[in-house]
This record gives sequence, C-alpha cells and structure tokens, in this order.
Amino acid sequence: MTKAANPIERYGVTRRWSDAVVHKDTVYFVEVPEDSSLDPKSQFRMVMKQIDERLAQVGSDRTRLLQVMIYLPNPADLSDFNELWDNWIPNGHAPSRACVHTQLAATGYCVELVVTAAIG
Amino acid sequence: MTKAANPIERYGVTRRWSDAVVHKDTVYFVEVPEDSSLDPKSQFRMVMKQIDERLAQVGSDRTRLLQVMIYLPNPADLSDFNELWDNWIPNGHAPSRACVHTQLAATGYCVELVVTAAIG
Amino acid sequence: MTKAANPIERYGVTRRWSDAVVHKDTVYFVEVPEDSSLDPKSQFRMVMKQIDERLAQVGSDRTRLLQVMIYLPNPADLSDFNELWDNWIPNGHAPSRACVHTQLAATGYCVELVVTAAIG
Repeated sequence: MTKAANPIERYGVTRRWSDAVVHKDTVYFVEVPEDSSLDPKSQFRMVMKQIDERLAQVGSDRTRLLQVMIYLPNPADLSDFNELWDNWIPNGHAPSRACVHTQLAATGYCVELVVTAAIG
Repeated sequence: MTKAANPIERYGVTRRWSDAVVHKDTVYFVEVPEDSSLDPKSQFRMVMKQIDERLAQVGSDRTRLLQVMIYLPNPADLSDFNELWDNWIPNGHAPSRACVHTQLAATGYCVELVVTAAIG
Repeated sequence: MTKAANPIERYGVTRRWSDAVVHKDTVYFVEVPEDSSLDPKSQFRMVMKQIDERLAQVGSDRTRLLQVMIYLPNPADLSDFNELWDNWIPNGHAPSRACVHTQLAATGYCVELVVTAAIG
C-alpha cells in the first residue's frame, strides 16, 4: 500500500464517527460530556476535561485551539458555561469561537463542542 | 497575473456560493438534496450520492472525510438518517461529526451537510 | 523559547475568544455586528464591513473566503441578507456557505458568521 503524501489519522473510529481526525497539522473533533445524567456545570467541567485529554492524545493542548463552535441547548446555561470556559482557556491563547442555542441530536446533553486545533 | 503559492480552486461558482472550494489539500463544501419534494429517506440517499459525486469532482472520496456538520431539522428523522449514514461511511474511515436539529434557510429540505475533506 | 514549525497567530485576544486565529495560511474568525441596536439591514452592512477589515488585518481579502457558516435568527431577514451578500461577494469568488435559523448566544444580534479564509 502506497503512503499518501498527507495521510489522515483517525482516533476512536466507530461505525458512525471518529473521536478525532488529524490531517496536515490540524485536528478536528467533536465532544459531548460522557455522562448526560450530571447537572449542567458538571457536564461542562467534564467536557472540558475530555477536550484536554483528546488534545493530549493527538499531540496538542489547550493553547493550540483554533476555532470552537459551541452548541448550548439551554440559554440559561450560558453564564455558567462562560465562567468555567474563561478559567479553562489559557490566558493569551483564546480560540475563535461562536455559540448558538440549538437542540442537539445527542439528547440529554447540555453542550456539544466542535473543535479545530493545531498540532506540532 | 502571478500565481499564488496556495491557489484557491472553486467549483460551481454562483453569485451566492460555490459548490466546493479547495485550498491546500482540503476541500470545503455544503450539500442539500437536489430534490426537496422527496420523502426524508430519499433525500438522505440523494444527498449522500451528491457528496460522493462532489468528492470525485475534486479528487477525493468517501474515505477522506475529515469533519461533517449535520443540520437535521426534524428530530424524528435521526434514526433513518443514521441507518443510511452507517452504511454509507466506509468501515474504519468515519469522520468527526456533529448533528443538531435546527431550521434551515433552505426551506423544504430535510438535511444540510457541511463537509470538510482531504484531497490527494 | 523554540519557535514552532507552524506557529499560531492570534488577533484581538480576550479572556473568552480571539477576534481571529491564523494557522498555516488559513484564518478562522467569527463576527457579529458591532452595534446590535441597529435595524437588520444596517447590522448586515456593518458585519460585512467588519469582515473586510478583519480580512485586511490578517493579510487576506473578500476574494479568498473559503467557507462561511451563517447563523440568522430571524427567517424573515433572509432575503435582505442575501441581497446585500450577493453584492458584497466578488463575482467568481463565492465561498462555500451554509445558512441556518437558530438563536444566538449573543442576544440582540441579527446575524453571526463563522468564517474560514485563505491567506497569502
């Protein structure tokens, strides 16, 4: 099998999605909290920890986030989310971000994040 | 006219959008089914066929999807969409994906997909 | 401090987000109109002007848009938005674009745009 010039690396591949996909020094991934039975603040803390772990898995970290799209179903959760986010983002390394309130296909979850980050 | 180091290639350019845009071994495109009068399952099959054709047009294929954002207006369509999706995605090559339920500007359509894929 | 092979450049960094993030000849940014008290058409004109300024700031321009995700809360605003958009996009250089109607976390704003563009 010939090796592609710019190979794609996939992590945590299932039938439906991969947990993360790496191409040309950029990683693409989506996270929802692992436990949807928790209260919103606990879900937010959990998903930020998951993002840290995912970034470490692919050789990146919290200072290399490029863009984050935040889907937050409940507008009432915004201030709690932002408070945790502001403490989680390393000073001077904030990504581009957008946040909208929409219903998730992943029912019961309080947030879904679509992340693009740099590697290397 | 001087040639840019990293030229942009556009396919199917209209006044409002391009069908696909290629930059640095990455293609960006958005698809809705061509025929919004069909039932949901037929629209889903149609749009997956369109994605295959679009990928072929730019020199990519279904094994090189990086990230897919799925806008599915009707939550009741999710299981049908997923069943077709799971059979369409080649084993071991699933992209990162997110799915939310939101109203499309393209009225009457049952799904809109925002695709990022690798080329070459 | 060693210099990364592919450094990240951030513009307008705050605690919560950066106005723009550049990585490997690609810029990622999100814009809402600066003044949410204006009527929709004025907000749309304003945000397009802001995008022009942001692109200039990072060494890009309106002909190098790759993908634009449009969040438009009010479906009734679509035709006004499109009319301005069609005149703003340079002929032959339209990006890939998607548009959905969803509630913004940034309350009071008539539109939020998630932009990916090429540099250099």
